Amino acid sequence: MNDIEKIQITPKTIKKLKFNADGLIPAIVQEHKTKEVLMMAYMNIDSLKETLRGGKTCFWSRSRKEYWVKGMTSGHFQYVKGVYYDCDCDTLLVKVRQVGFPCHTMKKSCFYRKIKE
Amino acid sequence: MNDIEKIQITPKTIKKLKFNADGLIPAIVQEHKTKEVLMMAYMNIDSLKETLRGGKTCFWSRSRKEYWVKGMTSGHFQYVKGVYYDCDCDTLLVKVRQVGFPCHTMKKSCFYRKIKE
Repeated sequence: MNDIEKIQITPKTIKKLKFNADGLIPAIVQEHKTKEVLMMAYMNIDSLKETLRGGKTCFWSRSRKEYWVKGMTSGHFQYVKGVYYDCDCDTLLVKVRQVGFPCHTMKKSCFYRKIKE
Repeated sequence: MNDIEKIQITPKTIKKLKFNADGLIPAIVQEHKTKEVLMMAYMNIDSLKETLRGGKTCFWSRSRKEYWVKGMTSGHFQYVKGVYYDCDCDTLLVKVRQVGFPCHTMKKSCFYRKIKE
């Protein structure tokens, strides 16, 4: 079940977005209801298109060098509610409905450690 | 007025954090009360230390190649409430109290544009 209608990103918007030298753009993932910041990962143009087409987050894994539909093995999918880009056009904010856990440690956010004295 | 006590980051935590080839780590900035994702920018080790020491966000500007205490010219400071790092140790989440606006467009978030058909 997808939460958004399939979105066809326009060539005009693609042209606006700034991918880095490796063809990647950072994507912050936020739970749309709790507003918790869940994780950050990277997308290339094709994983962004797949995210919009399929309605589930799809990233480019820099370590494994492969596409990675989040939840494909764990079932912990992130259903996309909306994709935003910032004033510099070099970062994405993806609002999602998180099923299960975003983090492999089974925490509710990947940012579970705090810097303290 | 700072919102947190000065935090001295330990060498052990510094060692854990993964800075990229340019010595930078992405820092997501979130308003601690509204939980709005405000912006993303980059820190190097010294701007992270300054953020913790001074209690206001300090970034490394990749375009201007200089340290940048957010709000130094506009007065729109971000007072740090807590700094978190993710399970991969390669991204920071900085929770702040935002004064004024985070964005030069005077929007309440830099992510004010949505990808749509």
